[in-house]
Amino acid sequence: MTKIVIVGGVAGGASAAARARRLSEDAEIIMFERGEFVSFANCGLPYHIGGDIKDRSKLLLQTPQSFLARFNVDVRVLNEVVSINRANKTVTVRNLLDQTEYQESYDFLLLSPGASPITPNISGINNPLTHTLRNIPDMDKILRSLNTNKPQHATVVGGGFIGLEMVEAFHQLGISTSLIEMSDQVMTPVDREMTGFVHSEIKEKGIDLRLNSALEAVEFDNSSQNLTLSLSSGEQISTGILIMAIGVRPETSLAKEAGLTIGSLGGIQTNDQLQTSDPSIYAVGDAIEEKDFVTEQPTLVPLAGPANRQGRMAADNIFGRNESYQGTQGTAICKVFDLAVASMGKNEKQLIQSSTDYEKVYVHTASHASYYPGAETVSLKILFHPTSGVLLGAQAVGKDGIDKRIDVLAVAQRAGMTVEQLQHLELTYAPPYGSAKDVINQAAFVASNIIKGDATPIHYHQIDQLSENQLLLDVRNPNELSNGNFLEGAVNIPVDQLRERMTELPKDKEIIIYCQVGLRGNVAYRQLVNNGYKARNLIGGFRTYQFSRF
Amino acid sequence: MTKIVIVGGVAGGASAAARARRLSEDAEIIMFERGEFVSFANCGLPYHIGGDIKDRSKLLLQTPQSFLARFNVDVRVLNEVVSINRANKTVTVRNLLDQTEYQESYDFLLLSPGASPITPNISGINNPLTHTLRNIPDMDKILRSLNTNKPQHATVVGGGFIGLEMVEAFHQLGISTSLIEMSDQVMTPVDREMTGFVHSEIKEKGIDLRLNSALEAVEFDNSSQNLTLSLSSGEQISTGILIMAIGVRPETSLAKEAGLTIGSLGGIQTNDQLQTSDPSIYAVGDAIEEKDFVTEQPTLVPLAGPANRQGRMAADNIFGRNESYQGTQGTAICKVFDLAVASMGKNEKQLIQSSTDYEKVYVHTASHASYYPGAETVSLKILFHPTSGVLLGAQAVGKDGIDKRIDVLAVAQRAGMTVEQLQHLELTYAPPYGSAKDVINQAAFVASNIIKGDATPIHYHQIDQLSENQLLLDVRNPNELSNGNFLEGAVNIPVDQLRERMTELPKDKEIIIYCQVGLRGNVAYRQLVNNGYKARNLIGGFRTYQFSRF
Repeated sequence: MTKIVIVGGVAGGASAAARARRLSEDAEIIMFERGEFVSFANCGLPYHIGGDIKDRSKLLLQTPQSFLARFNVDVRVLNEVVSINRANKTVTVRNLLDQTEYQESYDFLLLSPGASPITPNISGINNPLTHTLRNIPDMDKILRSLNTNKPQHATVVGGGFIGLEMVEAFHQLGISTSLIEMSDQVMTPVDREMTGFVHSEIKEKGIDLRLNSALEAVEFDNSSQNLTLSLSSGEQISTGILIMAIGVRPETSLAKEAGLTIGSLGGIQTNDQLQTSDPSIYAVGDAIEEKDFVTEQPTLVPLAGPANRQGRMAADNIFGRNESYQGTQGTAICKVFDLAVASMGKNEKQLIQSSTDYEKVYVHTASHASYYPGAETVSLKILFHPTSGVLLGAQAVGKDGIDKRIDVLAVAQRAGMTVEQLQHLELTYAPPYGSAKDVINQAAFVASNIIKGDATPIHYHQIDQLSENQLLLDVRNPNELSNGNFLEGAVNIPVDQLRERMTELPKDKEIIIYCQVGLRGNVAYRQLVNNGYKARNLIGGFRTYQFSRF
Repeated sequence: MTKIVIVGGVAGGASAAARARRLSEDAEIIMFERGEFVSFANCGLPYHIGGDIKDRSKLLLQTPQSFLARFNVDVRVLNEVVSINRANKTVTVRNLLDQTEYQESYDFLLLSPGASPITPNISGINNPLTHTLRNIPDMDKILRSLNTNKPQHATVVGGGFIGLEMVEAFHQLGISTSLIEMSDQVMTPVDREMTGFVHSEIKEKGIDLRLNSALEAVEFDNSSQNLTLSLSSGEQISTGILIMAIGVRPETSLAKEAGLTIGSLGGIQTNDQLQTSDPSIYAVGDAIEEKDFVTEQPTLVPLAGPANRQGRMAADNIFGRNESYQGTQGTAICKVFDLAVASMGKNEKQLIQSSTDYEKVYVHTASHASYYPGAETVSLKILFHPTSGVLLGAQAVGKDGIDKRIDVLAVAQRAGMTVEQLQHLELTYAPPYGSAKDVINQAAFVASNIIKGDATPIHYHQIDQLSENQLLLDVRNPNELSNGNFLEGAVNIPVDQLRERMTELPKDKEIIIYCQVGLRGNVAYRQLVNNGYKARNLIGGFRTYQFSRF
């Protein structure tokens, strides 16, 4: 009879326990959880605070009782595994109710301890109005604080998933909110210029967004139940509640003390079978370093999807199967008010940092047939290898159809597809759902044009560095240029007049063409090049340039 | 200077013309269209009739003038190419305004004549109240008929895309509607049992759905502006407008008369470069037989997506490129009231007909995290090879996230992926968009379990043929069995009581387990099998069985 001990009862641990039981009736399975809850919906916490999920009990997906009844798993909440004795194959467990300690033996140990929120060492940060959000008790504390103090103003530090979701939650509760972000953008997984759409949306909703701004000190006033935040800019913010959401760190203390190998990024190291440096000990989820799908290098990706699948796979391998984890793409999505922002694979920042060759395209096109009600612009960026066309990454922002496009590209990347192959994708089309040439096909056409030499691109960040030998040509209609929505110094010839007015353009200069999204620019580019001009087309058009500045 | 003559100015023809111009400034491009309109939104016609698309002009995407200005294409509407002289490389064109005829020479001819609605030879079918819907004049005629006669009742014959969309249009206009379908299901691309959800939705909306019913005669009463329809069932329907939507037939008369090879399915035959039997003549769109992606056999797929991409590709090949059409999966979707129904690849009917080995799974699971508002059940069927696991086809029905799931599977099929690989897909997850284990992952788990022998399936259509040596076990909670929602003769032991009550079950019979959707059934199956019982689990559970009967 195999005895399996699991540390951590949420995504990875719970998946492993259920799968283990399905594989074996007679295994003994004990799952330790130091918290009060197992298998809760941690991704739902901000939505309960904001009121979208009304019923708190909906977040509690399983209980120790339901695990016992269905899977015959001995779930021990408020029991913390405090050390591992690898020689004896035992763990020491502390019962947090009475602080007694006891030993439990194992044949296989599965570590799924998760990650914990990073709290920076800032003066005054430890106070009753400052919170992190990782589990049910954190959520309950925030709700109590809101109910008791009824703050008029909230501050969120960190513009990642949790930070953005909490900003939206506070906004829904009618609380005026500041978002403090140290870097020049929210949502690190996507590139700076794509976050322009997000920054614009956040500001439009009345959020006080402060980029390039760090929290330096916190002062708590007990009588007024108020905090004064001092920022790196020298400014101060008076606020009634503070959420620290600057990221998480793998929970590795148990593994480290047991002498298991910790990787250079600070996560538990595992092989492709999710085995740690001790073959009897497996590890999954936010605590481990996993293989990046694109680079095959170790990476930290604290996301629910990989954690769940890893848990299931570790159970398989404990029972002698030989399943290999096939790498993490980091596919992710976040709702930011009416927008969705999503990404998969590598972003441009990472490609630059690793000196990987790449090319990129931007398209902005309707989520479904533009003549059918409800179509919204999908802004899509695809990164690919400049000669092979292999997909490196993708990012999308918009109000409709964002998840679908990134999912399609995530599958394509996992299958090793090239942008040439994406041209042939045959996706669902009826006016309420898509277009005969989907966003993805269109982006693939643009990318393939570049690879084949049918298009010479110029990108938004090169526009401000044009030389004397280049001439800007705006091929939009004059009515699109109002309110300063044009590039300084551009000549305006609408694309439909270009053939007859082509002689107005000099043949000794490179013509830098742009339109609103890049489509008419491509028509103009082909005309000019086929008539002997030198030209480039601004990929993604004025819209990409414009939003990169938000 | 290359001279290109294009026959047909809608999807394929218009795409080819635009691409050809982008490839060459000096080519002469003439596009003939016998109708009044080019490049109109034919997929939008039912939605203008039903009032979703208010503005008729939104359906007119391009005009001859706009084509000339942007692409320097000589568009001649109301000019019909009536014959091809391949020896001279000329076409004879009839100007439909004055009935004069003239010749036009070509270097390359591109045929994109489309398909025409089939009107069966039924007594009385030619009358002013009977319509087909393929183009703008058809739509205008139907609208005039509705405005003039203000019918209280409408009848649609044919439950395909156009038929279903017209049923919904009439319903939106407050017109009581009958839908007559000769076979036992609507939406031929999906299998009978999956259309149960669609039949149920159609009836729920108050539509008079008549399956297994053929129209045999029509009688027109001029004074009352009414039709009397006689059906194969002997019944009669009195109706104010009749839409015939039983399918389309490739327009091949021109090609046939010119001696071009016509395939066995009745479409123009082309090679992978979209060249007809005459190397100077290309053909694209609804008129051609294209290669089926799965079987590599010729097929007729009258859909907009392939037509558009083929047009672009034919233009590439006319200019000496060597692009190959990579087959059509037939990916399709249709909105049926609040439901979407979609499919890709081969369906089970086709696999049976071609004696292809297959296995299948059904899952019914939430479109996104069930604790977040707005989640709807996605009912998904996946067909795959029983040993290799290669994807053969997929079908999905539901109110949310249907397009996304079929798109993901369409990409996976095009990439040659197996259900084993689908387990590892890393799709976007946040509560508003998906689940940590997406529908696709879950279906892949079920399918892989079958392939690996971890699950022994039984399917809904085998349930009514159980033998004496099999015992039905319902593992749902008793409260789920109300209103006759159970299988006759089943023993009920809730899954969470199964371990303690297992001895109630006989070891000499095969236990046929079912639950609502198959998930708890799998838990019970693993318990029983790991305890030495023989068992099978009803894939897709009671829900699949139940809806197969609608």
